Amino acid sequence: AIDAPRFLDRLAALARIGRDADGRLMRLAASDADRAGRDALAGWMREAGLEVRIDRIGNVIGLWDPAGRAAAPVMIGSHIDTVIDAGIYDGCAGVLAGLAVIESLARAGRTPTRPLALAAFTNEEGVRYTPDMMGSLVYAGGLPVEAALATTGTDGTVLGEELVRIGYAGPEAPGFLQPHAYVELHVEQGPVLEREGVAIGAVEDLQGISWQEVTIEGTANHAGTTPMSLRRDAGVAAALLVTWLRERARAGNGRSVATVGRLRLEPDAINVIPARAILTVDLRDPEAGRLAAFEADLAARLDALAREEAVTVTVRRLARFDPVTFDPGIVRAIEAAARARGLSVRRMTSGAGHDAQMMARICPAAMIFVPSAGGISHNPAERTADADLVAGAEVLLDVVQALSGA
Amino acid sequence: AIDAPRFLDRLAALARIGRDADGRLMRLAASDADRAGRDALAGWMREAGLEVRIDRIGNVIGLWDPAGRAAAPVMIGSHIDTVIDAGIYDGCAGVLAGLAVIESLARAGRTPTRPLALAAFTNEEGVRYTPDMMGSLVYAGGLPVEAALATTGTDGTVLGEELVRIGYAGPEAPGFLQPHAYVELHVEQGPVLEREGVAIGAVEDLQGISWQEVTIEGTANHAGTTPMSLRRDAGVAAALLVTWLRERARAGNGRSVATVGRLRLEPDAINVIPARAILTVDLRDPEAGRLAAFEADLAARLDALAREEAVTVTVRRLARFDPVTFDPGIVRAIEAAARARGLSVRRMTSGAGHDAQMMARICPAAMIFVPSAGGISHNPAERTADADLVAGAEVLLDVVQALSGA
Ligand SMILES: NC(=O)NCCC(=O)O
Ligand SMILES: NC(=O)NCCC(=O)O
Repeated sequence: AIDAPRFLDRLAALARIGRDADGRLMRLAASDADRAGRDALAGWMREAGLEVRIDRIGNVIGLWDPAGRAAAPVMIGSHIDTVIDAGIYDGCAGVLAGLAVIESLARAGRTPTRPLALAAFTNEEGVRYTPDMMGSLVYAGGLPVEAALATTGTDGTVLGEELVRIGYAGPEAPGFLQPHAYVELHVEQGPVLEREGVAIGAVEDLQGISWQEVTIEGTANHAGTTPMSLRRDAGVAAALLVTWLRERARAGNGRSVATVGRLRLEPDAINVIPARAILTVDLRDPEAGRLAAFEADLAARLDALAREEAVTVTVRRLARFDPVTFDPGIVRAIEAAARARGLSVRRMTSGAGHDAQMMARICPAAMIFVPSAGGISHNPAERTADADLVAGAEVLLDVVQALSGA
Repeated sequence: AIDAPRFLDRLAALARIGRDADGRLMRLAASDADRAGRDALAGWMREAGLEVRIDRIGNVIGLWDPAGRAAAPVMIGSHIDTVIDAGIYDGCAGVLAGLAVIESLARAGRTPTRPLALAAFTNEEGVRYTPDMMGSLVYAGGLPVEAALATTGTDGTVLGEELVRIGYAGPEAPGFLQPHAYVELHVEQGPVLEREGVAIGAVEDLQGISWQEVTIEGTANHAGTTPMSLRRDAGVAAALLVTWLRERARAGNGRSVATVGRLRLEPDAINVIPARAILTVDLRDPEAGRLAAFEADLAARLDALAREEAVTVTVRRLARFDPVTFDPGIVRAIEAAARARGLSVRRMTSGAGHDAQMMARICPAAMIFVPSAGGISHNPAERTADADLVAGAEVLLDVVQALSGA
């Protein structure tokens, strides 16, 4: 068994790091708050006897190799960066459960036939820098580290400079450890497990993600003197796009989702018709063909909008990941571990993106989900019951043991 | 005649004050840039022999009383604050034309039977602090000066503190000079004069203005995991409101206009369903009843939106002014002056708000419009031909002479 109180105490401790003046949790990637979280985590890793290594993209990897084996490690991972006004579980639960798993094996005197590695990947959320899952994507060779380090953030900072500033631009080449397998525990962040009363999700696949930034240019003019018929209002065009995205997402079979999370008007003055609207479009679908069809429809809609509203539209791609299928063997091992502990389990699709989807490019990988109260995430009200977290960590322990021979 | 080159040179000089790093003109009320503009204007006033007096709301009033008469002055006025990324004519043309008028009379050795006063009113634009036309509204007794000084701006500053900071919190009680009449020259900021090839607008009325701030609260949740049917998306609700406003404005007889110039999402993260949207609604109509009906429809639409989208909606009133009718005698004097100079003239309604509408509460008032190229305003492309500006200033000269006996 894992040391549940210590696991939960650390989760609470990490949740105190990165609160702003209003008490909102915000540990954006490579920020001062992220540094403080990384320092705490690295300290706990060292206390647990892990060798902490940092790679060039800032991934923090703790290595536990009590028997000094040269074999490829079993890697456990997730992230500790957060969104804005975040909950405390997203990412942190998985990293700290991994630490609890390794400590439990160490305490029990186990010597696995393979090393264990615990990873906290940089910038999983993609809120400050895009794409999301950036640290694991770079680790898996899907994005050159130089390109990732050159990324400009929403606040105009450059990721590579921020990593140097916070002291987490490490020396290791991303991918320096080729894992034997990768397992990630995460809160579901959706409503399925709670609604069905199921304790454990064995995540067998993960939906595709398309992120784009759309810039609409109209003409600034006076709000009082300009007849409706003579306007080229970038804000109205943006609003038409937002409502169209919802209709299009709803019109499908209910699996596509579309979100406009960011929207900015310029000049942003009460009596000036907006000259420019800049918004993000997040499209997802578990099926590659449907996601591509949604993207094609969006492109056509933007063309039509440009004509109908006499605006110009430009699009910048921020992230694009096809759906991912996880390793059937690890999925079965998760199901078996849950059942052996008397826990209800179901196979499921992940609606969120996760580091596991990038690691699946270079080794067998899968994920364990635990229920999210009310299906709420990316919200300070995000919550998973302690018992559910501990159950998930114990399934993780069993799966890691099975994979590593511990 | 007025000294046209000097008038136009000063307009160009004022246009250089308050450019940001990108070259955008932005002299928001009570900002450092506004201070620099005020300093330049006060300097020119003193050079012209005006006595400069500042009132508690920061209105700059230059008095010219060569014959030392105790009579109520004829006031000429407008403003020199600007919107964000502004043109160079809005407000400034009227103030500097007024200065040119007084200088011309002084040069000609005229001694009017009444003093002349030239006013540059504080915060006409209403972009940083609401309501708009604030300085003239306070001057006319429509808003207590203490309430105006306590206004919090879009940037969190307090107007009264900013006026102290820039050195323009003056000693005079607003309204310290009760005018005999008020005349304002302004660029039309709309398409009518240019389209009809008319040189001078004799503004006989000004449409009603309703400004509200709408806050919509939904629930932040994960963009990937939250089914469309379970969302309470404040951004979608805001978009539905924006598109409804345009339809409602278009549905009328073509006289109502509606604008959403500001819109902010929170937390404003790409993969978080917006928890909150804050937007401004600017409604205008020349007819009081139609404006009130639009407002009532908006209130009903917001109630329905709250129900349909399961969001909460709160509304804060930022400004509310009924349509204003100007003084028929001054309107006729404008027409007569234009015709006497061989200029085409038409009566018209002002689509924009102006200080004249506030001064009309305390004395006979009217306005002179000159054409705006392409009907463009609140945009750096705002332009009025030099000849049109000079013609307008000369009509102003004639009307001021008629009103003041100069
Ligand atoms: N798990 C999670 O919230 N990841 C952030 C990337 C995404 O938006 O799916
Ligand atoms: N003239 C002018 O642009 N005034 C600003 C107030 C308004 O929005 O009408």
